[in-house]
Amino acid sequence: AKSSLIVERPPVRRFNLNNVTITPDPIGNREAVLILTPMARFYQEYWDNLLKLQYPRELITLGFILPKNKEGNAATTALQAQITKTQKGPVKDRFRSIIIERQDFDPPLTSQDESERHKMENQKARRASMSRARNSLLFTTLGADTSWVLWLDSDIIETPPTLIQDLASHDKPIIVPNCYQRYIDSETGKPRERPYDFNSWQDSPTAQEIASKMGPDEIILEGYSEMATYRALMAYMAEKEDEKHLEVPLDGVGGTALLVKADVHRDGAMFPPFPFYHLIETEGFAKMARRLGWHATGLPNYKVISLYLYIV
Amino acid sequence: AKSSLIVERPPVRRFNLNNVTITPDPIGNREAVLILTPMARFYQEYWDNLLKLQYPRELITLGFILPKNKEGNAATTALQAQITKTQKGPVKDRFRSIIIERQDFDPPLTSQDESERHKMENQKARRASMSRARNSLLFTTLGADTSWVLWLDSDIIETPPTLIQDLASHDKPIIVPNCYQRYIDSETGKPRERPYDFNSWQDSPTAQEIASKMGPDEIILEGYSEMATYRALMAYMAEKEDEKHLEVPLDGVGGTALLVKADVHRDGAMFPPFPFYHLIETEGFAKMARRLGWHATGLPNYKVISLYLYIV
Ligand SMILES: Nc1nc2c(ncn2[C@@H]2O[C@H](COP(=O)(O)OP(=O)(O)O)[C@@H](O)[C@H]2O)c(=O)[nH]1
Ligand SMILES: Nc1nc2c(ncn2[C@@H]2O[C@H](COP(=O)(O)OP(=O)(O)O)[C@@H](O)[C@H]2O)c(=O)[nH]1
Ligand SMILES: [Mn+2]
Ligand SMILES: [Mn+2]
Repeated sequence: AKSSLIVERPPVRRFNLNNVTITPDPIGNREAVLILTPMARFYQEYWDNLLKLQYPRELITLGFILPKNKEGNAATTALQAQITKTQKGPVKDRFRSIIIERQDFDPPLTSQDESERHKMENQKARRASMSRARNSLLFTTLGADTSWVLWLDSDIIETPPTLIQDLASHDKPIIVPNCYQRYIDSETGKPRERPYDFNSWQDSPTAQEIASKMGPDEIILEGYSEMATYRALMAYMAEKEDEKHLEVPLDGVGGTALLVKADVHRDGAMFPPFPFYHLIETEGFAKMARRLGWHATGLPNYKVISLYLYIV
Repeated sequence: AKSSLIVERPPVRRFNLNNVTITPDPIGNREAVLILTPMARFYQEYWDNLLKLQYPRELITLGFILPKNKEGNAATTALQAQITKTQKGPVKDRFRSIIIERQDFDPPLTSQDESERHKMENQKARRASMSRARNSLLFTTLGADTSWVLWLDSDIIETPPTLIQDLASHDKPIIVPNCYQRYIDSETGKPRERPYDFNSWQDSPTAQEIASKMGPDEIILEGYSEMATYRALMAYMAEKEDEKHLEVPLDGVGGTALLVKADVHRDGAMFPPFPFYHLIETEGFAKMARRLGWHATGLPNYKVISLYLYIV
């Protein structure tokens, strides 16, 4: 792989960062989008939804990072099979380029069991590890000509097909839709939806108070009864489906689906694997971006759907 | 440029980060090196020294970022002339690839006058802007197959030709030689050397005390009588030229010449443009790397030479 790259790479590439536009009309201005997905498991529904996105494929680069374990191997195989299908198909349906990376460090937990994953004492190590995976992927795929970065988790199985242009149309440095989960109501046997991502929030005096009393290496975690933060969670702000473009300011963001202007990352905003103002990963990213002068916005009524894991 | 990239890019690239070695024998293991230079001015002596480095060119990618001003335009023209000479020469003498970026934000100061540059009140804005330039360059050039990143300022005009392999042989995540400056002694008229980079240091209780009393947005600057830190500066640790490989642990590092294992950056270590533990830019980078578990090392007796600016 190394030697072939040497031959294929153009010897000198010149980029005028001024000429890379990042506008509310990304298709009209032919803006390059980098879709980044950390992937522990491959779900066909994720891939099918990705293929439904109505953004010109020749402007989309896909980047994946998968753990180096048995599950990661299986996911890589499944992912590559789907990629091959698309990239060997008609030229007009091919993505601009695709990068697949395998992690060079161990994921902290072997089990992906949902209750296990969400246990508070495991969260810090898990999210520190996820931060390193996200950073590794970001630092090695972001280009000088990238306009937008769409972070999209591998369990996002349903989004509007106009996701990218819809989010970009708001012209915000960081913008995040509301992530829901579908499940079967055990009493009625009918499918229902419930909020899934609790990392998008507006800060509260209580949370700030908790933070001020913490040791330098402690972190605030959202969504645990042991630590009531009274933050205003976007998860509970959804109201009218028809007001899809209602904006709310956010202090923390989740990474299940997250559109970022590439300049925010190029300025240095990454996913802190260490406590940064007592926040890590995507929540720490929002805080770091803020320190760089960039603000986050949420769309409480714009929904994306995460897969519900029956089998664990 | 955009459309040609689409054609030239291979559709799928796979990287196993485990297989990218980062060893004390980088030439033997054919490890890719990325040399990154923020460049406000072009000096022929910098380029001549770069060409003297005895590291296989087919393993070296060069990355430059230049400001968008008159000086930056002149430097870009001069740089491109030299690049063309090398890259149109014999294949064996060509670098693997070269990326030139033009900044999309204004440098904070128009004058590069040395006394002006070093004034304390200007340092914070200047170094915040330098941090953004370094991050922009880093985030857009680092590859999944990069083993080492050598930061090399454009005013470094003399280094041992074995700089890369010498520094790498120490097998340290972050390693920095001692940067000196040559000048003409005004009394004797003879050339002399003096320490130049005061950003490589070991922390002191006094500096920690100063930091503990600072507001959240204040920074500690080194090398100013107004703020005596009593840090142990590597600049003053040089002793025996024959003990070139003597190592000292460091808490802050300068960026004039700085070798970093690519994994440190891939983990997320960047150059904070905001006060990070009251440190910014390269000093903040060392602190951020430490938070990620990586330690910095200095080589007080291993010298590199920075140009003395007579004309300002
Ligand atoms: N590369 C990598 N990806 C992971 C790892 N663990 C989880 N992921 C992926 O990271 C994203 C978030 O993980 P998930 O388990 O859904 O977290 P949750 O939604 O916060 O509970 C998903 O896309 C996962 O597939 C890991 O160890 N390595
Ligand atoms: N891209 C970019 N590079 C700069 C700018 N200002 C200085 N540089 C470069 O950054 C490096 C460090 O700057 P220098 O003025 O030597 O700083 P000092 O050695 O810390 O006094 C050198 O390679 C400069 O050419 C800037 O505004 N933009
Ligand atoms: Mn998930
Ligand atoms: Mn300098």
